[in-house]
Amino acid sequence: MANSPSGDSVTDRLLRVLETFTPTRTVQTASDIGRRAGLPSSSAHRFIGELVDTGLLELDEDHRIRVGMRLWELATRSSAALRLRQAAMPAMERVQARVGEHTQLAILEQDEALFLERLSSRDATSNITRIAGRLPLHASSSGLVLLAHAPAELQERILAAPLVALTRATLTDSAALRRKLAEIRRLGHAVAPGFIEDVATGLAVPVRDAAGTVVAALSVVIARNAPVEPPLDALHRAARDIHSSLGG
Amino acid sequence: MANSPSGDSVTDRLLRVLETFTPTRTVQTASDIGRRAGLPSSSAHRFIGELVDTGLLELDEDHRIRVGMRLWELATRSSAALRLRQAAMPAMERVQARVGEHTQLAILEQDEALFLERLSSRDATSNITRIAGRLPLHASSSGLVLLAHAPAELQERILAAPLVALTRATLTDSAALRRKLAEIRRLGHAVAPGFIEDVATGLAVPVRDAAGTVVAALSVVIARNAPVEPPLDALHRAARDIHSSLGG
Repeated sequence: MANSPSGDSVTDRLLRVLETFTPTRTVQTASDIGRRAGLPSSSAHRFIGELVDTGLLELDEDHRIRVGMRLWELATRSSAALRLRQAAMPAMERVQARVGEHTQLAILEQDEALFLERLSSRDATSNITRIAGRLPLHASSSGLVLLAHAPAELQERILAAPLVALTRATLTDSAALRRKLAEIRRLGHAVAPGFIEDVATGLAVPVRDAAGTVVAALSVVIARNAPVEPPLDALHRAARDIHSSLGG
Repeated sequence: MANSPSGDSVTDRLLRVLETFTPTRTVQTASDIGRRAGLPSSSAHRFIGELVDTGLLELDEDHRIRVGMRLWELATRSSAALRLRQAAMPAMERVQARVGEHTQLAILEQDEALFLERLSSRDATSNITRIAGRLPLHASSSGLVLLAHAPAELQERILAAPLVALTRATLTDSAALRRKLAEIRRLGHAVAPGFIEDVATGLAVPVRDAAGTVVAALSVVIARNAPVEPPLDALHRAARDIHSSLGG
């Protein structure tokens, strides 16, 4: 439907427009959006104007363009992200209260860990995750849990690709990563000391739905050399509570 | 750009497609979406297929269609909703811990109160608000706070329109509503006993940004006849904390 002369669909163009907005680039001019999205300048302003008219994009007080509150509402109100997050929140708040560190919920999305929720604590350990942000599967504790329980085809694809080092501790050898995934399945949790940042250890457990399928990873980030057993206890208990909330 | 024979733009069609998904209708067939969105059947399946291909919509395990995790991510990661919510969360958690009832954050959107966040409590008072859900401005405590600080033009539009009664206590008389808005500005908070549900009282305070503009309402829902002073104290303190987080 409605293809441009260059052959891409309007849906592709919309996706490219939305992708130009990031956590650190929240407002842009129409010209910047058009350039970054690769839209022909002849049609960029008209297309972006339509998106503003419908509220999918909106103008801020300085007449720059940002993602519309209406789009957030429509993308959120029926979403699986919201339902999973709501089922997890009471248990996440208990983990945060007990451990006193950042507490996150992540799912597998397009070969990365996508974070649906993050509860922050004052004076907590350093942590680069953001809500609606992503981390690599092989480096983050959440990603490792999701990868350990992912279909074999996805595991092999990740194991065959270059494994980027975020720190000197990140597992970049595919045989070592394969052993780590087996260990995670055996122990029921992932410990990732310094894999993302030298100063921090990620701890994550799988969250299962009513059918027993791993649908998310619940994690905390603690200081690199802090004891892991108390937070792991809290995570395992919380994962059981979320499993119950999901009907398990 | 890319108008159909009936004259509506693809952007309009996208909006209509997204609007067919609601908190209680989270998955649909392509035929149902097309019918509810008023798309010509000749193009509905192709358009919906494109949206699935880009991940803006996605298939669930039963091959029904839902809003895509990718759309949630793109609509959330740069959004003003997320930034405001993140600034408010620590204070909201303190209110919830102190008051022990549902705690909400709402903004003004298209003449309604749109809820960005809701922290739930077990055994809390009845409450119909949902994240990414809406309530009327004249009936909810959050809406009343937002309306009391809205531009005069918006206030007059709401006062001139029919004021729907959700309960026998909802203010439906424009003179009474006008007095209520003045009272809210004078007292610095809204008390809405039974306006939404007979059994509950809504309490809300304005949240101001660095420039002093009211950008949100923070609210709790308590039992109809519970004391209002302790929760109002907690709300006022939290609103000051959020104002500080926003640079005020």
